[in-house]
Amino acid sequence: METVSENRAFGGIQGVYTHSSESCHCDMTFGLFLPEEAKLGPVPVLWYLSGLTCTHENAMTKAGAQSWAAEQGIALVFPDTSPRGEGVADDEAYDLGQGAGFYVNATQAPWAPHFSMWDYVAEELPALLAENFAVDMERQGITGHSMGGHGALTLAMNLPGQFKSVSAFAPISNPTAADWGRKQLSAYLGDDEVAWAKHDATIMMKERGFDGPILVDTGTSDQFIDLLRPEALAAAVAERRQQAVLRLQPDYDHSYFFVSTFIEDHVSFHAEALYAD
Amino acid sequence: METVSENRAFGGIQGVYTHSSESCHCDMTFGLFLPEEAKLGPVPVLWYLSGLTCTHENAMTKAGAQSWAAEQGIALVFPDTSPRGEGVADDEAYDLGQGAGFYVNATQAPWAPHFSMWDYVAEELPALLAENFAVDMERQGITGHSMGGHGALTLAMNLPGQFKSVSAFAPISNPTAADWGRKQLSAYLGDDEVAWAKHDATIMMKERGFDGPILVDTGTSDQFIDLLRPEALAAAVAERRQQAVLRLQPDYDHSYFFVSTFIEDHVSFHAEALYAD
Repeated sequence: METVSENRAFGGIQGVYTHSSESCHCDMTFGLFLPEEAKLGPVPVLWYLSGLTCTHENAMTKAGAQSWAAEQGIALVFPDTSPRGEGVADDEAYDLGQGAGFYVNATQAPWAPHFSMWDYVAEELPALLAENFAVDMERQGITGHSMGGHGALTLAMNLPGQFKSVSAFAPISNPTAADWGRKQLSAYLGDDEVAWAKHDATIMMKERGFDGPILVDTGTSDQFIDLLRPEALAAAVAERRQQAVLRLQPDYDHSYFFVSTFIEDHVSFHAEALYAD
Repeated sequence: METVSENRAFGGIQGVYTHSSESCHCDMTFGLFLPEEAKLGPVPVLWYLSGLTCTHENAMTKAGAQSWAAEQGIALVFPDTSPRGEGVADDEAYDLGQGAGFYVNATQAPWAPHFSMWDYVAEELPALLAENFAVDMERQGITGHSMGGHGALTLAMNLPGQFKSVSAFAPISNPTAADWGRKQLSAYLGDDEVAWAKHDATIMMKERGFDGPILVDTGTSDQFIDLLRPEALAAAVAERRQQAVLRLQPDYDHSYFFVSTFIEDHVSFHAEALYAD
């Protein structure tokens, strides 16, 4: 693992690191904010999964999460959204290939074996963090924006016990029924829709739910709301009687201005769960 | 004036607008955050002047100022750092020409007449804001980063009465004595250093001072600190017995992580002055 940069921020350190990834068969870069408390011992961890076109950097510089994470003594992890590099397949469209890993393990050419973002986020990066930094992997929460909200919700429901809390900003909530989803799941996983189900938050909510609290914010003026299908997830949450807070925020859109407005609430929400017991 | 974009943020609106500038003889773009309170009547205004290479956008998306401005009910203005466009002179160096206006009125070719950022920020843009938005121009404060800190300090001291408070992040504090300064002042204003004096915060502090509070933060690990010369301004402030808080922040560098860490303090500092009386 190599240090790309470390900047003092909010009394802690905002670092960027690169490492050779076994899951993705390429070098991967991630951001990690460690609050001052990490000097004294392991701190809880909040994952932030980003949306289409993003790298590790967008949320790290634009979401404003560090201010609140520092206040709560929580680390923030900002993974990249896909494998990258010259030997990695790509597509001309912004919503497929590099920058659009969709948090799945691709089984189809030309995406396999590089596009294994599920394994990368669920297993490889957590192990790397545990080995190299003062983070308490018994206290993890996960959030994300758009495609990253989809990743946060599906990872949390598929990996019971791994995350104490999950939240999302404008998540892609029902990708098996939307153009943001069918295209990518078909490309990465093939046409057998049975393999898609675990990557659909609405289906997972119907089948399994989440053993902990959920917070989801979506803007009523989100320009992509028809692709996100918050109504499908909302119905599934209510049907299951899942502990959750689903908020439709008046006049907010899909931008980082929306994310940064509500990130304080999300960090506080996770802190409450991460410090419980 | 045309609206480029308007995004809901922190209960208010983060807008971007473009207009034909008389001072700069080209189209100019600026960002304006209006808090929710602006619906009810004019709100105080805090100017944020950006550093070398920046446009109106950098601080608007990376400084995290809106959160605190919303809490205090204050508008934020993010001007560009220079004239721009095809007919506007430029230089290959990052620190001269477009993106590096230095908040002066250029008198020398090829920079005059486009490079009139002093007039633009001191007169033209305030008049445009007063005419088009619910802003209280009797309650203005000014801040900035690096070259923008230089701009904030020199504008505030040269225009007594216009700003109630001034602050700066890692300002270029003594440009007549540093490579960030001598090069640009010479190019824009010519070799007669008499014309440079009003654009040097240390000289202005010695000659005039500021009738209000000053707050300046600089990181002890700032990679450009030798160019900033905080020691010159600090000595001048102390000699004058100027009301001021000068802070050297341990281990912080020149990045936006430094700015975003302390922006809450700066917005609170200005709010106190802007709401006084």
